[in-house]
Amino acid sequence: MAKKAIILLSGGLDSITVLAIAKQQGYECYALSFDYGQKHKAELNAASQIAQSYQVKDHKIMSLGLNAIGGSALTDNAIKVPDHLQDGIPVTYVPARNTIFLSFALGWAEVLQSQDIFIGVNAVDYSGYPDCRPEFINAFQQLANLATKSGVEGHPFTIHTPLIALSKAEIIKLGTQLGVDYTTTVSCYSADEQGRACRLCDACRLRAQGFYQAGILDPTSYKP
Amino acid sequence: MAKKAIILLSGGLDSITVLAIAKQQGYECYALSFDYGQKHKAELNAASQIAQSYQVKDHKIMSLGLNAIGGSALTDNAIKVPDHLQDGIPVTYVPARNTIFLSFALGWAEVLQSQDIFIGVNAVDYSGYPDCRPEFINAFQQLANLATKSGVEGHPFTIHTPLIALSKAEIIKLGTQLGVDYTTTVSCYSADEQGRACRLCDACRLRAQGFYQAGILDPTSYKP
Repeated sequence: MAKKAIILLSGGLDSITVLAIAKQQGYECYALSFDYGQKHKAELNAASQIAQSYQVKDHKIMSLGLNAIGGSALTDNAIKVPDHLQDGIPVTYVPARNTIFLSFALGWAEVLQSQDIFIGVNAVDYSGYPDCRPEFINAFQQLANLATKSGVEGHPFTIHTPLIALSKAEIIKLGTQLGVDYTTTVSCYSADEQGRACRLCDACRLRAQGFYQAGILDPTSYKP
Repeated sequence: MAKKAIILLSGGLDSITVLAIAKQQGYECYALSFDYGQKHKAELNAASQIAQSYQVKDHKIMSLGLNAIGGSALTDNAIKVPDHLQDGIPVTYVPARNTIFLSFALGWAEVLQSQDIFIGVNAVDYSGYPDCRPEFINAFQQLANLATKSGVEGHPFTIHTPLIALSKAEIIKLGTQLGVDYTTTVSCYSADEQGRACRLCDACRLRAQGFYQAGILDPTSYKP
């Protein structure tokens, strides 16, 4: 029987690549997405389409209401998504987001008796978001094995981060080799309902640069 | 200006005691509760009443829908709440519950620029739930300081567990000294809408034993 894995699936280009990697490694995949009050809902539509096209065993979209907490340009209407790259930790940082996402993945993994969680954190995000760094992931893995019945009973969890040391261009090349179709993915922080991108936000710029450096044409649609 | 603290407030006797302790230590208190699909909703009504009577600065009840994941007698209708104490990790264990709760507390703390999170884990739960042990709490605190902008920028978080080494009887005595009124608290896993307890579940038995050993009369109401 195939081993089960939970894949955190945002609907962006990183997470579809991670799903393709987990599939290739022979895991039976369970996709987990979050409606956390993000302004860019097109991402969730993309996640649903991707989950379907990869025939995942189950896809859950959990509603979290992080906008009740606010504090990020992605969840708080009082904070504008910037139209230029920023130094330091960006205002698009969502407090404790990956901690929260991994916690739910951990709970679901335990119920499914899966020991494997995949998350598409990578070297580009790494520079800005504290919860995309290897030391954060290692600390979460340690926590997971202390927090749970599975961990205590000797069935430890592994947090897989296959993209962590890759640049955006390397991720895109790897995904393309694995047959990933990036058409449905949404990276833009301000995408419209059809998932069309703004070209201007950090996420759009990093994506465009990645495709350019990979020498691959980006199939994304832009707002007119 | 008073330092801000997040208090995880379930509406049970432990969390009201923790709130009283944080108040006594001079913190400006922000209470956080979760509607996680638990069968015993009376707990949340109790949390609201307690938050009001302690005049917390803000009280958020976040909806999590953990019943979408299931796997616990508290969240899954397919698993019955047992009417006797169990050996090992009980079926009332909710996968990754405290990890999820602390993650949200961390996110809110960061937004409020608070470095202090209080949680009422204690020595009695300790014996059964992996995510009530000191090693879990220490691991979460380490994670918190790697996961966040605050942690990275040198404003570390402390996870306060003032009850962790106390028995139920000691908690009740301490709370009583601090003037806690336990009338509104709900401990029972199968309480009815008025918050009346069943007498039979683990939580009822531990509570009754605690009041008995403390030599204090339990003001709780039981189902007729």
